[in-house]
Amino acid sequence: MEKYVGKPVSFDQIDLMEGFWKEKQDLFREVTINAVYDRFEETGRFEALNFNWKEGMPNKPHIFWESDVTKWIEGAAYFLQKQPDPELEAKVDVLVQRMVDTQGEDGYLNAYFTVVEPEARFTRRTDHELYCAGHLVEGAIAYAKATGKTAMLEVAKKYIDLIDRVFRIEHSAKFDTPGHQEIELALFKLYEYTGEERYKELAEYFINTRGTSDRDETYSFTDQEHMQSHLPVREKETAEGHAVRALYLYSSMADMALINKDDELYQVCKKLFKNIVNRRMYITGGVGSTNRGESFTFDYDLPEYTSYNETCASIALALFCRRMWLIEPNHIYADCAERALYNTVLSGISLAGDSFFYENPLATNPNRNAFNDSRPQGLKEHLPILERVKVFDCSCCPPNLLRAIGSIADYMYSVADDVIYAHCYMSGKATIPLNDKNVKLEQKTKYPYDGCINITTLTEGDYTLALRIPGWADDAKIRINDELLTLPIKNGYAYCKRSWKSGDQIVLELKMDVKIFEANSKVVDLCGRAAITRGPLVYCAEAIDNPYNLRDVRISRAANYEVVKEMIDHTELPIITTQVSVRETMEELYLDKPLPKRTVPLKLIPYFAWANRGVTEMTTWFLIEE
Amino acid sequence: MEKYVGKPVSFDQIDLMEGFWKEKQDLFREVTINAVYDRFEETGRFEALNFNWKEGMPNKPHIFWESDVTKWIEGAAYFLQKQPDPELEAKVDVLVQRMVDTQGEDGYLNAYFTVVEPEARFTRRTDHELYCAGHLVEGAIAYAKATGKTAMLEVAKKYIDLIDRVFRIEHSAKFDTPGHQEIELALFKLYEYTGEERYKELAEYFINTRGTSDRDETYSFTDQEHMQSHLPVREKETAEGHAVRALYLYSSMADMALINKDDELYQVCKKLFKNIVNRRMYITGGVGSTNRGESFTFDYDLPEYTSYNETCASIALALFCRRMWLIEPNHIYADCAERALYNTVLSGISLAGDSFFYENPLATNPNRNAFNDSRPQGLKEHLPILERVKVFDCSCCPPNLLRAIGSIADYMYSVADDVIYAHCYMSGKATIPLNDKNVKLEQKTKYPYDGCINITTLTEGDYTLALRIPGWADDAKIRINDELLTLPIKNGYAYCKRSWKSGDQIVLELKMDVKIFEANSKVVDLCGRAAITRGPLVYCAEAIDNPYNLRDVRISRAANYEVVKEMIDHTELPIITTQVSVRETMEELYLDKPLPKRTVPLKLIPYFAWANRGVTEMTTWFLIEE
Repeated sequence: MEKYVGKPVSFDQIDLMEGFWKEKQDLFREVTINAVYDRFEETGRFEALNFNWKEGMPNKPHIFWESDVTKWIEGAAYFLQKQPDPELEAKVDVLVQRMVDTQGEDGYLNAYFTVVEPEARFTRRTDHELYCAGHLVEGAIAYAKATGKTAMLEVAKKYIDLIDRVFRIEHSAKFDTPGHQEIELALFKLYEYTGEERYKELAEYFINTRGTSDRDETYSFTDQEHMQSHLPVREKETAEGHAVRALYLYSSMADMALINKDDELYQVCKKLFKNIVNRRMYITGGVGSTNRGESFTFDYDLPEYTSYNETCASIALALFCRRMWLIEPNHIYADCAERALYNTVLSGISLAGDSFFYENPLATNPNRNAFNDSRPQGLKEHLPILERVKVFDCSCCPPNLLRAIGSIADYMYSVADDVIYAHCYMSGKATIPLNDKNVKLEQKTKYPYDGCINITTLTEGDYTLALRIPGWADDAKIRINDELLTLPIKNGYAYCKRSWKSGDQIVLELKMDVKIFEANSKVVDLCGRAAITRGPLVYCAEAIDNPYNLRDVRISRAANYEVVKEMIDHTELPIITTQVSVRETMEELYLDKPLPKRTVPLKLIPYFAWANRGVTEMTTWFLIEE
Repeated sequence: MEKYVGKPVSFDQIDLMEGFWKEKQDLFREVTINAVYDRFEETGRFEALNFNWKEGMPNKPHIFWESDVTKWIEGAAYFLQKQPDPELEAKVDVLVQRMVDTQGEDGYLNAYFTVVEPEARFTRRTDHELYCAGHLVEGAIAYAKATGKTAMLEVAKKYIDLIDRVFRIEHSAKFDTPGHQEIELALFKLYEYTGEERYKELAEYFINTRGTSDRDETYSFTDQEHMQSHLPVREKETAEGHAVRALYLYSSMADMALINKDDELYQVCKKLFKNIVNRRMYITGGVGSTNRGESFTFDYDLPEYTSYNETCASIALALFCRRMWLIEPNHIYADCAERALYNTVLSGISLAGDSFFYENPLATNPNRNAFNDSRPQGLKEHLPILERVKVFDCSCCPPNLLRAIGSIADYMYSVADDVIYAHCYMSGKATIPLNDKNVKLEQKTKYPYDGCINITTLTEGDYTLALRIPGWADDAKIRINDELLTLPIKNGYAYCKRSWKSGDQIVLELKMDVKIFEANSKVVDLCGRAAITRGPLVYCAEAIDNPYNLRDVRISRAANYEVVKEMIDHTELPIITTQVSVRETMEELYLDKPLPKRTVPLKLIPYFAWANRGVTEMTTWFLIEE
């Protein structure tokens, strides 16, 4: 297929009807939206928009609180777009009015730099002003699309006008490019929404200037890698520094490559993508191996207990993948997006929908956390927490989950010339603009729990339907109107070109086996261990189900792996059971004889469902016995 | 045998003749003593004793510099005792004269608290004044024994008089017990050397008061566990806090238990010893799993890459063991002392004898250090260094090695009633006071490289010779004058009571096999891995000898393990070679099929010899294939 002709198919053209993601969205609509709202209300994040905080008052505005608010608005807007909710809409309107009332004459809008440190405005690159502006734009567009109300969009555009003048035209700010990326993505979105070139130009200015400016200083506690300014973007070859900043940058680079058909830039993106998935990504789609700078580290550095794997970083990875498949369809991008979404991203929220993880480790040792908690501040190590909480001081992940899940259908389809690409499978009715027609498709599936996907055409027309065959599927059968077909497969997509009638039945059957994965032997922490997956889901084991030393469990490829349904915290999930061996216990610390082993059952749950039943040891990588 | 009747046999009654420790001592005499002296001279540690530092001058005295000096003197004294060296003795005399000249009227002696912060004298518990006083005493006794010169001893006694008055009589100091233990050990030694009860009383006062005083405050950056004051000593059950402080304390508790035949206190010591060896000690005899507070952590917490294992902590562990076997002979104490001395303690110094490790990890990953070194200060993690250095800012370990190796023959024998115990085997001629006679024994052995120990009696007499059978020896044969005997064995000692003639030949043959040890399955970091040992030596592998991924190497119990001699950095060592399997390399980060394995040779060197050939990956625990 030709490159650079891809167009997204927005979630607003798709109605999810049932199944995995619809259930998640219902939970989010009923619980999560309000849970996040209430915590933000309690912590003063909304009040801060009134700009009336004074020294001595509680809830001092924080430099990135605006982004929490506008990300919540963006998430709320996605749900409003699908289902009216006057009460929710009223909440947003109140917040928008506060922005209208408090925005500066010149368009500036940031509570902290207005009521706390006005003199520092646009002087500190680390301080998230442009990051907040980006989320203001994305929230404003979403809210305008959902409700037709443009007040927030006007506020956003007025602020962007100021930023354009200060940064691109006058260079009167103390620095040239954002310390934390996001506005670049927002500007391309604003360009796409308004068609106004200047937004694209500002985004390109930020991207092209990055890594070339002497005014983009760094700070004692961080470095240029952290802020993605160690090299001009076109010279990057490996994923470095802060994982979210990196992936927001790469996503905007992919936007730019697509818009400008810039192959040089796409090759850079591809090199970065490959460095991530082949060297620096956890099997759960988690990225950013260390809490130190929330950053990428070095090739093959994937420790289990201290893996940072910020929820937002995996959301950003999915955003990057979705842009990459528009440039050049290849299953590796959707495979990676699903790896991130179904594992680390969903691990970021409880099954009940009201509490969150910022970090998503691959293994936990409650004894280590208990000891650490007992130590004086100066002697503590940083460890991931063991139970989800309602809100964080830095609470970027909860509203980011709202945005991601609210617009999850964005991952279903894209079009290119006369081809409709089906990337991630979920049950939904889609109206897909293809050239000057609208193609309607209805998809039904129990994916990711089942590999069977049924697509019915609801319109007729001549076009190619390209179905993604995931890398994990050893076998895929495609039947059209009950006829088994052998279709040409390119880069993991099966292409079916024909004159479709309304009512044609396409059935894709993906072989969804339990699979045992071993890591590259260069990963020092994972040698001798293996992970268990099924479809896009990675599985883990918790001590609450398996009362013995999980780290000593030895799985076997030869064993029988059964998939059965079971309730975990009021949610029915496909769990995996198998037989494993574990050494008998001993009193000695070290013993010079092999211990007898006993066979015990091992119960595995989807990784995203861990830590929903109190504090209990968890592990994802198991010793493997040949 | 009866308890509490043990008496040490001092190294000064033993002449090492050849073999492992004699060679080490020769190296120390030729290289290490001067190497440490020169570094201390360069860094101003000796000059500081002149008390003429003023603000603005370089080499500002540090609160524990005195201890570096007096530990060096103590080490030098041990070598002087065995072999006159006028030049070395002259160096010590200069330093002693400085102490004589600068000691205060009242006996106070500490450069920092005299020239930098005089007003803070005896006010900050963390600040090592009493620790330094303890090392002053130990150095002074050693120097008096070696040379008959008592000037330093007079200085030390005068200082102790002040400390006794300020702390025990007047309570005029701001705190009651030392933040860093050491003076307790020194006071018992001074009591033994002078026979003056008051030194014993002061030591007992410090030990009994610990953990009972409200004036022993703690500090924001640490806690009472760190300083061993979380509980009265008799209530302790687990090893907590700073490893060196803990083990110096336990050693002084053992001294007190022996002197007072205090069984309650001995039972506490035994409980602490068992908690260490059965729950909190690396197989190399390293203790203190974390750099955070240089401390013990929690049961079964034995990470490989970040293990702290301070050289001084293992020296302290050996000191503790040597005291315990005086109270109650049991091979577990000497087994543990050898584990520490032959592995972690010797890892603390290069084969060339002039550079040192403070931390002794079980595995290293040079990629991790390289990445860490590239990070800004604020984002670095603490990692053990990969090559030994000549001196540290906190350079306690180098002079501690001088003390330990200079007096290593202290570990050979002890007596109890009419029994002579042979604990750690080395080649040497000993004159052992037994009741009112002197027993002379000559021991010849290539231990720890060979399990054959030959002892010849050089005097006649009726007594029992008790030979230690190490826990690792599956078989031990004892021949006396070529007659194979079956002797009663109790707590790992074979007792041979008879009327000895001069010239009797005792031959002990310990089966010294290559052994494969697995760790308790509660050690999450070591499940599925095994360590390789021979006699008291733990072996490790370095990438420089084994060009493949060491972490992926799978050893087998069934394989053949050969011991051959080889030169490592100009030192002939018994290395172990075997065949292991390792997975073929792959490009993917994760693969759902088993990789073929290939057989490769693995070369293992004694752990103490690691890092003598540049920066290279090292590992001690290997995957094990059943």
